[in-house]
Amino acid sequence: MIRASEDNEYYELTSPTILPKASGFLWNEKMMIHMNCRGYAVAQFMQPEPGKYSYAPNLEAKTFMQPEQPYYAHHPGRFVYVKDEVSGEIFSAPYEPVRVLPDKYTFSVGKHNIVWKIEHHELLIEMSLSLPKEDPMELWRVKVTNLSPKNRKLSIYPYFTVGYMSWMNQSGEYKEDLQGIVCSAITPYQKYQDYEKIKNLKDKTFLLADQEPSAWEVNQEAFEGEGGIPSPSAIRGEMLQKGESRYESPVAVLQYRSEMEPGEEREYRFIFGPAHDEAEIDQIRRQYFIDKNAGGQDGFALAELEYAEYVSEGRGCIEIQTPDADLDNFVNHWLPRQMYYHGQTNRLTTDPQTRNYLQDNMGMSYIKPEMARAAFLTALSQQEVSGAMPDGIILHKDAELKYINQVPHTDHCVWLPICLSTYLDETNDFTILEERVPFADSEELESVFEHITRAMHWLMKDRDERGLNFINQGDWCDPMNMVGYKGKGVSGWLTIATAYAFIIWADICEKGDRVNIAEEFRLAADETNAVVNQYLWDGEWYARGITDDNVVFGISKDQEGRIFINPQGWALLSGAADEEKQEKLIQAVKEQLETPYGVEKLAPSFTSMREDVGRVTQKHPGTAENGAVYNHAAAFYIYGLYAVGEKENAYRLLRKMLPGPDAEDILRRGQLPVFIPNYYRGAYRQFPHTAGRSSHLFNTGTVPWVYRCLIDGLFGLQGTKEGLQVKPQLPSNWQEVTVKRIFRGAVLHIDMKRNSGVATTEVYVNGKYIEDGIIKDLKSAAEYKVLVKIPS
Amino acid sequence: MIRASEDNEYYELTSPTILPKASGFLWNEKMMIHMNCRGYAVAQFMQPEPGKYSYAPNLEAKTFMQPEQPYYAHHPGRFVYVKDEVSGEIFSAPYEPVRVLPDKYTFSVGKHNIVWKIEHHELLIEMSLSLPKEDPMELWRVKVTNLSPKNRKLSIYPYFTVGYMSWMNQSGEYKEDLQGIVCSAITPYQKYQDYEKIKNLKDKTFLLADQEPSAWEVNQEAFEGEGGIPSPSAIRGEMLQKGESRYESPVAVLQYRSEMEPGEEREYRFIFGPAHDEAEIDQIRRQYFIDKNAGGQDGFALAELEYAEYVSEGRGCIEIQTPDADLDNFVNHWLPRQMYYHGQTNRLTTDPQTRNYLQDNMGMSYIKPEMARAAFLTALSQQEVSGAMPDGIILHKDAELKYINQVPHTDHCVWLPICLSTYLDETNDFTILEERVPFADSEELESVFEHITRAMHWLMKDRDERGLNFINQGDWCDPMNMVGYKGKGVSGWLTIATAYAFIIWADICEKGDRVNIAEEFRLAADETNAVVNQYLWDGEWYARGITDDNVVFGISKDQEGRIFINPQGWALLSGAADEEKQEKLIQAVKEQLETPYGVEKLAPSFTSMREDVGRVTQKHPGTAENGAVYNHAAAFYIYGLYAVGEKENAYRLLRKMLPGPDAEDILRRGQLPVFIPNYYRGAYRQFPHTAGRSSHLFNTGTVPWVYRCLIDGLFGLQGTKEGLQVKPQLPSNWQEVTVKRIFRGAVLHIDMKRNSGVATTEVYVNGKYIEDGIIKDLKSAAEYKVLVKIPS
Repeated sequence: MIRASEDNEYYELTSPTILPKASGFLWNEKMMIHMNCRGYAVAQFMQPEPGKYSYAPNLEAKTFMQPEQPYYAHHPGRFVYVKDEVSGEIFSAPYEPVRVLPDKYTFSVGKHNIVWKIEHHELLIEMSLSLPKEDPMELWRVKVTNLSPKNRKLSIYPYFTVGYMSWMNQSGEYKEDLQGIVCSAITPYQKYQDYEKIKNLKDKTFLLADQEPSAWEVNQEAFEGEGGIPSPSAIRGEMLQKGESRYESPVAVLQYRSEMEPGEEREYRFIFGPAHDEAEIDQIRRQYFIDKNAGGQDGFALAELEYAEYVSEGRGCIEIQTPDADLDNFVNHWLPRQMYYHGQTNRLTTDPQTRNYLQDNMGMSYIKPEMARAAFLTALSQQEVSGAMPDGIILHKDAELKYINQVPHTDHCVWLPICLSTYLDETNDFTILEERVPFADSEELESVFEHITRAMHWLMKDRDERGLNFINQGDWCDPMNMVGYKGKGVSGWLTIATAYAFIIWADICEKGDRVNIAEEFRLAADETNAVVNQYLWDGEWYARGITDDNVVFGISKDQEGRIFINPQGWALLSGAADEEKQEKLIQAVKEQLETPYGVEKLAPSFTSMREDVGRVTQKHPGTAENGAVYNHAAAFYIYGLYAVGEKENAYRLLRKMLPGPDAEDILRRGQLPVFIPNYYRGAYRQFPHTAGRSSHLFNTGTVPWVYRCLIDGLFGLQGTKEGLQVKPQLPSNWQEVTVKRIFRGAVLHIDMKRNSGVATTEVYVNGKYIEDGIIKDLKSAAEYKVLVKIPS
Repeated sequence: MIRASEDNEYYELTSPTILPKASGFLWNEKMMIHMNCRGYAVAQFMQPEPGKYSYAPNLEAKTFMQPEQPYYAHHPGRFVYVKDEVSGEIFSAPYEPVRVLPDKYTFSVGKHNIVWKIEHHELLIEMSLSLPKEDPMELWRVKVTNLSPKNRKLSIYPYFTVGYMSWMNQSGEYKEDLQGIVCSAITPYQKYQDYEKIKNLKDKTFLLADQEPSAWEVNQEAFEGEGGIPSPSAIRGEMLQKGESRYESPVAVLQYRSEMEPGEEREYRFIFGPAHDEAEIDQIRRQYFIDKNAGGQDGFALAELEYAEYVSEGRGCIEIQTPDADLDNFVNHWLPRQMYYHGQTNRLTTDPQTRNYLQDNMGMSYIKPEMARAAFLTALSQQEVSGAMPDGIILHKDAELKYINQVPHTDHCVWLPICLSTYLDETNDFTILEERVPFADSEELESVFEHITRAMHWLMKDRDERGLNFINQGDWCDPMNMVGYKGKGVSGWLTIATAYAFIIWADICEKGDRVNIAEEFRLAADETNAVVNQYLWDGEWYARGITDDNVVFGISKDQEGRIFINPQGWALLSGAADEEKQEKLIQAVKEQLETPYGVEKLAPSFTSMREDVGRVTQKHPGTAENGAVYNHAAAFYIYGLYAVGEKENAYRLLRKMLPGPDAEDILRRGQLPVFIPNYYRGAYRQFPHTAGRSSHLFNTGTVPWVYRCLIDGLFGLQGTKEGLQVKPQLPSNWQEVTVKRIFRGAVLHIDMKRNSGVATTEVYVNGKYIEDGIIKDLKSAAEYKVLVKIPS
C-alpha cells in the first residue's frame, strides 16, 4: 500500500516489492543523500571533494546521480541484519540484502527524516535516518522491540557499506576510544599541484555508536565469506571476529548481542560519515554522544531537531485547499520543500550552470527572498563587460567550471530579467536595480540596471544577419552541440526567448522609471517576434532552429524531432504567436507531444545520431532531452498556456506533471509522490511499454516554474508594483478553493467561489470591493480576509 | 588441489574455495582478459576505446586493472546456470553466482585457453575460453555431458554480463537473423571536438550462438527479479521471457532446453565481444559460424588453432632441466609467455611509458628480435634534439600522453643503452647503431649512435653542481613526485643508474668502433661513481636521494623509508660499491629488506605522508612502491648480485620471486604459478599478516630482467660480440643441469656438470675445449653439443 501519513509529514510504502525503487531524499548544506526503500543509497554526494564516503565495492565512477539507475547486490547501502540466536534464522532490515519479505513493512519518506518499520518473527525493527543541519554525516536510529510473549536471544548487526575507497591506500579498524570504526583512504592524485587540494580532504569514513558493541567486523571479505552478502558467513558464527582491513575493502559492521524480555525496546544510535582525521571524529563523538551520556544535552536529538526546523523553514507562500486533495498535499508540503532544496544548496555544486542558479534562486524569492537577492548580485558580478554571462557561476574560490560548463551555451542572459521579475513581484524591492556590482573582467561598479541592459544588448548583437540568435554549442534544455558550432547556426527557441526577455525587461524598466530603455526593448521585442514569424513559423508550429548549413529543423518534414515544445511554449509568452497561430500550435502540441504522462520535449524521439544537431540525438529515445516528458520544458508550456488564458489545457497538463497518490500511476512512474522528477520517460508513441517512468532525479528547474504556474496562473495571486493582483484561472469544474497567501509580510485568507451572480471575477477585501482586482496598501504582519467571486 | 597438468599446458585448481582469486589471463593484439576461477572477469580491456564491452552494473570507472582487487556479486563475469527441469535444482558453472560447491571442480589455466570442468548432479559442464589472434572478442565453448544412467531434462543458461553500458543510451534485443543478442550503447561525450573520436567506436556488445536457443532474456532486472543473481527469478520459470532492454541494463542470457540420454554430450559455442554495428556482427557470424554449418571450414575452431599457434610463437631462447622441476616448469613454459605478452601488446596501451616500452622490447630480443629492433627505432624517433626522452612513446597517431605520462620523470634516457645491450648480445646486429632516425622536434636524421650519445649527454647535463642527477617529479619505480619538483632535489638511484648506463654505452661504443666516445663515458662513469660515494654513501648503504631542501633520505636516521633496494642493486652494477661497500650493503638488505616472500622495495614502509617525498608515501604500506616486494626492483638487485658473483644469495632471492607449486606458498600468495605479479605485499615486519599476497597484476617489467638473470647470471649463457660466453653461476647444491640454448639461429645442447677434476669452469664444444669459454663461429641452424665442467 502507498499512502500519505495522516499528518502529511510522510509518504509511506508498505511492501518493498511493489515499488522497488521507491525513494526519499534528505539534504543539508554539505551533502545530499537519496535512499531507497530497500536500503540502497541511490545517490550520495557531498561538496567539496572527495564527494563520497561510502563507495561501490570496486572502483566506482564518482557520479552525482544517474537517471533510472539500476542497483546491484553490492550497491552502497545501510542495513541491519537480525539473527535469532536460538533458531539461527536471519533476516535484514529494511529488505536488502537478505531479501526476506517481512510480515509487515513500512517505508516512510518524511520531510526531515526517512523511516522504515519492519515486523518479522515477532520483532519490530525501526530504522530512521536524519541529518544534522550543516555537517555531511548521517544520524541513524535503530530500535528493536520484542513483540513476542517470550524472551528472545538476538544479535543485531548494523551494516554500513564502505566499499572500495581507493586503489592507493585503504584500511579500517575499530577504535575502542572512539567506540566506532574508522576507515582510512588516500585520495589518489597524479600531479603534485593537486596535492594541496587533496591533502585536507575528509577521506576517512567513520561509524560511531552510542552503545558499546559486543563485536565488530571491518573487513568486507571476512564478513561475507562464502555466504556472500545475502547470508554473510561471519554472522553465521556466534561472534564477529573483530577483524581489520589492510588494503582490503573495509566495511562497518557492529554486533549487538542481547536478551530481550517480552515487550522490551532497545534503541541504538549511530553516526556515519566522513572526516579528515580522528581528532575530528572524536570531536563529533563528544558533540553528539558524550554530553548526553554524562547527563548533559543530547547532541544527537538536538541535531535532529535543528534539522527538522531547518527543513521547515522551506515553506512556500501559499497554502491551498482545493477540490483536488492530492494537489493540496503536494503543493502545501512537498513542492516548497523541493524548491527550498534547490535554492539552499545550489544542487551541491560549486559551479552551478548560470541558468540553473538563476532559476533556483527565482524559486527562493517565494521562500527567502534575501537569498535570491544576494544570488542575483553574485551572478551579475561574474558577467563580462560585454554583457555576456558565463556558463556557470563560481561559488567558491577554489571552484572551476567543470563538465558541461566548459561547453559554450548562448542562453544565459535571457534568464536575468525573467528570474528577477519574480523577485520583484514578490518583494517590490526595486532598490536591487540600483545596486552597483563589478564585472568579471572589470572592477568598475555598475548598477544592476546597467548590467542587465548590457545582457539584453549582448543578446541583440549575438545574432545573424536575419536577426536570429546564434546557438553556438547549445542553449537551454537541449544540448544541441552541433547545430551552430561553426558560428552560423541559430536557435529558434532562443530568439523567441530573447523577445520574451526584452518584454519582461521593458516592463521592469518601466516600473523602475527607465522609460526610454523600456521603449527600446518593447520595440526590439516586436522586431524579434516579426523575424521569428518570418523565418521560423512552419505552418502549424514554430521550428526549433536552423543549422550551420542553413537546414531548418523541428519542422513538419522531419521524420524525427519534428516538433519541439520549447519554441511553442515561449511563443505564447513572447507574443510571437497571434491568436490563429496560438490555436494551431496548441493543437499540434496536443496531437504530437501530449501523452498520458505529460507533454514530451520533442517528438518523435531521435533514434539515431543526427550529426547536424548533435548530442541530444545520441540520448536514448524518450530520456532526458530526447523526447522525455521533460518537466522543466513542460512547465514553461503550461506557463505559456496560462499567459494566453488556456486554463483548462493548462490545468490538465499541470496535473499530469505532479506526482499523485493514485497507486496505478505511482507504479507506472515507479516513484512516490514526494518530488517532481526532471523527467518521465517519453517516446510514448514509439515505446509505449517504458513511457511514463520517473527518472528518479529530483534536481530540476521545474519546481519554481510550477510554483509560478500556481501563483501567476492557476490561483492568479501574482505581485505587482501596486500590490497583489487577483486573477484566478481555476478549471471550470472547481466550485471553491481557499488559499492562504503570504505576501510581503501580509497574510491573506482568500476564499474563491463560483458565483452565478457575477459576470467577471470580483474581489472583496475584508468585505470591500476592489475595482481593478489589485489589493493595495497591504501591511506586513496584518491579516486580510479576501473573497473572490468567480463567474459560474 | 593445485597442480600442473601432465603436458604442462595448464595449471589446475580443483576447488573454487581454496584459492578464490585464482586466475589466468589471455590476450591478443587488441584486448586482454583476466578471468578468475569463479567466473569473474577480473579485468578486461581493449584498445582503442571504448575499452570495455562488459560493464559493471552501475557506472563503473573504466580501469585497466587494479592490484589485489576485491569482487562483488555483480562483478562482470561469464557463467552458465544449469537447471534440472525435473527436480528444479539449480547450480552454476564455474561457481558464481549460485555458489553451490560442485562434486568435482577443475579450473585449468592454459597457455592459449582457460578451461573449467564442473561435475555436479551427475552432469559434467566444461567451459573453455579462447581468443582469436587479432579481434577483441571471446570464443567460448560450453559442453554438457549427462553422466547419469538415466535420461535428463535440462535447461542450461549461458549468462554473459553486459551491465551498465552508458548513462546516455543503452538498449538490447535478440536478433533472429544473427542468432544472437545485440546490446547498443552510446559513449557519452561533452565537447563536439570529441565526437569524431567516439563516433566510430565499437560500442555495441554482442553474443552470438552457434545453436538456436529455446529462449533468451536481455533485460537484467527482468532476469534477476526478486531472486537476485544467486537465484534469478527468470530461471525459476519454465522459459525465459524473451525480453528486451530499453534504457535498462542489458544482459545476455540464452536458454537451451533439452533432453539428454545417458552419456550424451552437447556442445554449444558462443562469441562475445564488441562491434561497431550489426553489419560487423553479421560478418563475424559468417566468418566463425556459418561456413561450418554450410559444410565449409570451421572458422571458430580455426581461430582457436591460430591463436594457439600465435601464443606458441612466444618461446624463449632457453629450455632448462635443473634439480628444481618447478623452476623448469616456470622458465620453460610461463615466463616466456608473460614476456611475449608484454612485447607483443605493449600492455594494451597506445602511449606506453618510455621505460616500460624499452624494457618490454628488451625482452622481445629473446623472442622476436626484429620487433625489438623496430621498437628501439620508434622510441628514438620521439627523442628530442636535446637528447631528452619523452615520458611515453606514442604508438598511434591519435594517441596522446595520459595519466602518469603527463608527470615529468628524469630516468628515461638511462634505459636506452641498458635495453639495447641485450638486443646486441642476442643478435650481434651492430647495424642498428648506424640506422638514421629523426627527432621529435627535427626532421634531420641522425644515427642511433648519435641519438643515444645525446641521451647520455642529456643525463650528464641534467645535474646539480655536485654532479647528482635531478629527479624533478619522479624517476623509475618510485613516483616520488615531491622530492625535486622545485628543480633542486636529486635522485641517488638515478645518479647511480647513470653511471651504469655510461659503462654500458662505453662498452657498446667500444665494440662499435667508437673508441673515443667509449673513453669519454668510462671516465664519466668513474666520476659519477665518485660523486655517488661522496654524497650518498650512508655508512652501511646508499641513500635514495636528496630533496629540494637538501634533506638526504633513505638513510639510517630515517624512521620510515630508511633503506631502498634500488640504489643498492644498481651500485653493484655501476661499480660504485667496492668490495667492502658491497658486503655492507648486501648485509643491510638481508637484515632490513629480505623477507620470506622476497626483497622489499623499501623499509620500513611509510605509514603516513612525507611531504618532501610525495606520492609514494601515500600508498598503502606494503603495496606497490611503498615497501612491497616489488619484483621489478628485486630483479635488478638479483641481477646486481650475479654481477658481483653472489650466486647463492642471488638464487635464493630469485627462487622467492618465482611463483612455485608449493600449496602453502600458493595459498599465501593467492595466485597460481602462471605469472610473476608486479608485487607481493610487503611491510613484512610491520604487518606480517598480509605480507606475501600477490597483487594479481601481470603487467610488470620484472619478466625480461628475470630472463636476463637466468641468461647472463644463473646459466651464464650471454651473447657477446665474439660469440656465446659460457659462465654459469649455479648454486653449489646443483650437481647437473642441461640447457637447450637457441642463439643467433644455432641450437646448443648444453650439459653442465659438477666435476671434481677441474679447478675452474671448462667448456667443451662437440668435445673440443674452448679456452676462454666463448663459443665462436656458431652457424645458424646448426646444432652443437656443449659440455661444461664446473668445479665441485
